Amino acid sequence: MKKAQRDAIAVRLKASAAAPRDGYIQDVLRCMVDAGACRIGMRSDRPLAGGVGACDLASPLARMIDHTVLAPQASEADIKALCREAVHHCFASVCIPPCYVPLAVAQLRDSDVRVCTVAGFPHGNSHTDVKAAEAERAVHDGVSEIDMVLNVGLLKGGQYEAVEQDIRATTTAAKAAGSNVVVKVILECALLTNEEKVIACILAQNAGADFVKTSTGFAKGGATLADVALMHRVVGKKMGIKAAGGIRTREQAMGLIEHGATRIGASASVAIVAI
Amino acid sequence: MKKAQRDAIAVRLKASAAAPRDGYIQDVLRCMVDAGACRIGMRSDRPLAGGVGACDLASPLARMIDHTVLAPQASEADIKALCREAVHHCFASVCIPPCYVPLAVAQLRDSDVRVCTVAGFPHGNSHTDVKAAEAERAVHDGVSEIDMVLNVGLLKGGQYEAVEQDIRATTTAAKAAGSNVVVKVILECALLTNEEKVIACILAQNAGADFVKTSTGFAKGGATLADVALMHRVVGKKMGIKAAGGIRTREQAMGLIEHGATRIGASASVAIVAI
Repeated sequence: MKKAQRDAIAVRLKASAAAPRDGYIQDVLRCMVDAGACRIGMRSDRPLAGGVGACDLASPLARMIDHTVLAPQASEADIKALCREAVHHCFASVCIPPCYVPLAVAQLRDSDVRVCTVAGFPHGNSHTDVKAAEAERAVHDGVSEIDMVLNVGLLKGGQYEAVEQDIRATTTAAKAAGSNVVVKVILECALLTNEEKVIACILAQNAGADFVKTSTGFAKGGATLADVALMHRVVGKKMGIKAAGGIRTREQAMGLIEHGATRIGASASVAIVAI
Repeated sequence: MKKAQRDAIAVRLKASAAAPRDGYIQDVLRCMVDAGACRIGMRSDRPLAGGVGACDLASPLARMIDHTVLAPQASEADIKALCREAVHHCFASVCIPPCYVPLAVAQLRDSDVRVCTVAGFPHGNSHTDVKAAEAERAVHDGVSEIDMVLNVGLLKGGQYEAVEQDIRATTTAAKAAGSNVVVKVILECALLTNEEKVIACILAQNAGADFVKTSTGFAKGGATLADVALMHRVVGKKMGIKAAGGIRTREQAMGLIEHGATRIGASASVAIVAI
């Protein structure tokens, strides 16, 4: 740590200590984080007094990760373990199958970790009304984020209006049920040409979604640097970009972020944030 | 052909010819089939006059096949081609993604080929209410058969009551929307132990489903002789057994039927019935 940083911390700590109050501990911790601390020993399963959550001090990488279990054989025990890990590491969310939403919402009630689920997953070719109803039901059950799968078959068939309408209906249903809900659109890049990826990004943006996402994790390929860079060139900063599928190391995650990803979906999240 | 068979045909044809009527052609064809004909040159895309469908004369194997396209990238053109093949070969049904149900129903309106779709496919871990709504919607849109996926995660977690309730709710919703609807329960055997397969069969039977089915075709393994034989030992003749996943030849299909399968799900159906 440079001398200037140490001095700045000293000044801020002194100022805080001069007038002890509820936020004192938070200020101390903020100073440490500002100075570059990446691990601070503390309880991480409850917000601190004074309204600042423990996760406000978590590593920025952890706060970008949707900690994910979507395998069909995942049991309640797997979801509970996922939630415990998410709280411990202050991940952005847990991303789980729809049938476990009530369980995850209950597990994470007092934490800063959001609950994310999927709609039309993983094939994206369910009926639009059903996909929208699935999203709406999940929001009513307490999720903050929906990862819906784009209808790849309709896109392949050039039915762009139907694809956009499918996204719009699902996004509208989700946001009508909860105004702060974030909707991500999974393109399943492994099945698309570059031209289709570009079109898909535009359709998702037109339809009012918040994120585009590379992959379900169940197709023949997952997130690639090239796909993330392409999506970034299309949507710029107007939408978030979630990279998911096959991300197992910190290096992979950081590379994807450098290319434009603003969220990482992974099952190997604990390994990714381990130092 | 033996002389006795030839004589029997001659007698029946003579009797039919003696009093020409609407059913004459059907009688002629039935005689040929009874005598062992497996291919008869005729138009197969319309029911014959007199109320006998072209498919009444199709090969028994074809009438046991659900001609299937469930890939996420399947387009409208793929579904139309599937329907044409199904009519031509008199397959039992086409099995297609939910978003294409209205298209397939329209394509097959004047044929003997049924329309089958899926619910909670392929992971089975959607919310029970959504799975039931998906089945109900499909029946309202005109399908005759629903292949639903069992909730594998709940089964793994020992939540047998919830698994049975998931199947019952979906089956009840489908049959309430259309009394003759057939509901098949996909176990996804590749993910289950033998004990779990037995339990799954019993739960499906208790819940009022009509068939148990081996696989979605999207897990690490598909139909096996051992699984079909096991399922047959559990459900006997009380339920149908559909073998699906990785079936590409007539020999495979016939082997599965010998072990107890009463329906075959395949994308390679045309190759399977080719002689």
